[in-house]
Amino acid sequence: MRTVTFGVANSLDNFIARSDHSVDWLRWSDEVAAFTTSFWKTIDTVVMGRRTYEVALAAGTTSYPGVMNYVCTRTMRAPAGADVEIVAADAVAFVADLKRRPGKGICVMGGGELARSLFEADLIDEVGVNVHPVLLGSGIPLFHRMPRQLDLELLECVTFTNGCVLLRYRVKR
Amino acid sequence: MRTVTFGVANSLDNFIARSDHSVDWLRWSDEVAAFTTSFWKTIDTVVMGRRTYEVALAAGTTSYPGVMNYVCTRTMRAPAGADVEIVAADAVAFVADLKRRPGKGICVMGGGELARSLFEADLIDEVGVNVHPVLLGSGIPLFHRMPRQLDLELLECVTFTNGCVLLRYRVKR
Repeated sequence: MRTVTFGVANSLDNFIARSDHSVDWLRWSDEVAAFTTSFWKTIDTVVMGRRTYEVALAAGTTSYPGVMNYVCTRTMRAPAGADVEIVAADAVAFVADLKRRPGKGICVMGGGELARSLFEADLIDEVGVNVHPVLLGSGIPLFHRMPRQLDLELLECVTFTNGCVLLRYRVKR
Repeated sequence: MRTVTFGVANSLDNFIARSDHSVDWLRWSDEVAAFTTSFWKTIDTVVMGRRTYEVALAAGTTSYPGVMNYVCTRTMRAPAGADVEIVAADAVAFVADLKRRPGKGICVMGGGELARSLFEADLIDEVGVNVHPVLLGSGIPLFHRMPRQLDLELLECVTFTNGCVLLRYRVKR
């Protein structure tokens, strides 16, 4: 079974974007880029929700290169970039099927709501959170309420010089 | 001016307690104890909200030894332990006054709501969050919504072998 990683950047107060979905507060650096490049080699597929994809589009990214991009949405029809496929069917069934197929790792990006349904269906194996040194005060929450507790095992904690801390966990089963 | 530190343990999904206020998921260890002892030497005062104090009481702690304990509450009248003083007046004005007096550091414990009013009044200098490796799914949130963004500077990141990660920040002004 392929490993499904939920990867995201958040503020210390658990937001992934401002209320208007902007992410101007995100910090990028050579260190983060190196870490991302290394992780990127372990995956061949990115799955994201519509809003996360719209944020990527707004930043000029029509698709992530070198991987297959899937956007789970019931409202968006035409993909905006090459190597992008719209998933209009049930996202949980889609990821469950994807996970059974041969391939490298799968990264679920952004979307707290997409992640919640995948967590609830027990499809997420690892969580990577890049905690930014900011209290946004308000915005789009990362973790939504779920009906049960999920225990995690800390795999790695990386401190970047820009003040971000990347926490990687394995979901215990 | 004395340094005011907001210190708290939370789940990765930003809860400080379950919905019934229980904290049975908190992990303690000799490492955490050593870190706490070291921090404890820098303070002489603990300020907490009523609910946090009730959690301490339920765990058999009537007061934290070696420091002055203040419980901010408008409903609780008699303190349950020695070295505990009830603060029925405005918590913000009280902490502002405390901060101007001579003394060692002040630790604001637990209470997300107490912390929010102190953050908004610009009275908190440092934040220490002990992130536990668990997604509780629901509970009492740590960080509440605030009208403005607060930028932080990462001071320290300590990984404990029990999977907890302690993040210490300075509030930028």
